[in-house]
Amino acid sequence: MEFHETRLRVRYAETDQMGIVYHANYLVWMEVGRVEYCRAAGLAYRDFERDAGMHMAVVEANCRYRLPARYDDLVSVRTRIRESNPRMVVFGYEMLLDGSDSLLADGFTRHVFLDARSLKPRKLPENYRHIFI
Amino acid sequence: MEFHETRLRVRYAETDQMGIVYHANYLVWMEVGRVEYCRAAGLAYRDFERDAGMHMAVVEANCRYRLPARYDDLVSVRTRIRESNPRMVVFGYEMLLDGSDSLLADGFTRHVFLDARSLKPRKLPENYRHIFI
Amino acid sequence: MEFHETRLRVRYAETDQMGIVYHANYLVWMEVGRVEYCRAAGLAYRDFERDAGMHMAVVEANCRYRLPARYDDLVSVRTRIRESNPRMVVFGYEMLLDGSDSLLADGFTRHVFLDARSLKPRKLPENYRHIFI
Amino acid sequence: MEFHETRLRVRYAETDQMGIVYHANYLVWMEVGRVEYCRAAGLAYRDFERDAGMHMAVVEANCRYRLPARYDDLVSVRTRIRESNPRMVVFGYEMLLDGSDSLLADGFTRHVFLDARSLKPRKLPENYRHIFI
Repeated sequence: MEFHETRLRVRYAETDQMGIVYHANYLVWMEVGRVEYCRAAGLAYRDFERDAGMHMAVVEANCRYRLPARYDDLVSVRTRIRESNPRMVVFGYEMLLDGSDSLLADGFTRHVFLDARSLKPRKLPENYRHIFI
Repeated sequence: MEFHETRLRVRYAETDQMGIVYHANYLVWMEVGRVEYCRAAGLAYRDFERDAGMHMAVVEANCRYRLPARYDDLVSVRTRIRESNPRMVVFGYEMLLDGSDSLLADGFTRHVFLDARSLKPRKLPENYRHIFI
Repeated sequence: MEFHETRLRVRYAETDQMGIVYHANYLVWMEVGRVEYCRAAGLAYRDFERDAGMHMAVVEANCRYRLPARYDDLVSVRTRIRESNPRMVVFGYEMLLDGSDSLLADGFTRHVFLDARSLKPRKLPENYRHIFI
Repeated sequence: MEFHETRLRVRYAETDQMGIVYHANYLVWMEVGRVEYCRAAGLAYRDFERDAGMHMAVVEANCRYRLPARYDDLVSVRTRIRESNPRMVVFGYEMLLDGSDSLLADGFTRHVFLDARSLKPRKLPENYRHIFI
């Protein structure tokens, strides 16, 4: 899968008094993109947490804001895996105004695989590797 | 304790494109008021969850919006217990512009005491009753 | 239109450390339901703000929490108009686990129509009345 | 001013089902740090928006997560200006567990000065330069 594309509608709650989307919310949209990427690859992230007893903890997040997203805009989030190994994965994101070439923002999140109980690093089990690597 | 007063500063993140605070955020401010009420009464809610193995789950929330709060306003949250017994507690809140009589909003939250593991109702243990009842 | 139904997927960002959805987020879902109700009735709320120069300000919000919503749940929001006149409108909401009869929460929001510039009450113009009344 | 330090208390609303603070909220804490930095330097950001008719728009945000922040933690946000000129400013942040050397996260936000009306770049007026440059 080169990238997965998902759509979301900008909520009023996500705007601020500049009349545009508050910048922290793009990180939430990246979460939506990442979760839908995994689902399209065959893994519900909810099941991953429960069945593997693991988390995919964010250790770095980066976003570059190109054009403001506005209330009620339909946004396409394109998510891909940029880098990965059994200990970590980097997801890349492009957020576009749906049906256009207008790049609103792009960025990445870097994750490490953790044991859910101890919150310590743990290698991704073999049976999940085809999803991420 | 008739009521407990705590102050908070409106964040840019909490505004929306109307130029005022988005209404759902007042429920978060009620949480801040409630937690500080408990702390002033001698109970860190964090310890309550950990030591008693319980939650105080919200079963109803109500807010009436009187005047808009704006970015950077200093808001006073006055919290009191309106009603309580070993199974439930109702907190009441008034949110005012700090240093004035301007009532921004008022409301209440109704909670039941739950066992943290089963998320089933559980009576408040004796040693916590003086806080709430 | 008796009611309008829209679906949304619970985001990780919307959960809290109880492992369920944080209660203030249901008010955001009501916003999603209300906006989609209006769109289905022929009015993009974004256009209403821009073309009529008006807001539909929340003056009261109420939510009763019945069953916890969880991460990745698909939630159906059923929105209807409970009461309305040229000065105000009350929307009612039921939030269910999609494809089931499990009522997660229900509630209402009461709104007054405001002039966007002055933030003072203003009667709904005739050409919008069929949407709300 | 080498850096400005401000404190905030972690809200329950800011946690997620991992039992720690959801990562996007650190960007909101950066906003709190930045606003308090400006206030300590003599400028209420609210007045800047109103009096200068300008915004300080975020064009890039970056955060590296070192240790999880938890509910009710008291967090110190240390904010400094890393780079600036009349067109832009970069703020750097360190977030620590208050009263300790535990670095929770660090990062930066890059901003450009915009005209509030047109949302186009505009040079910072002379009378505000001592705050940022």
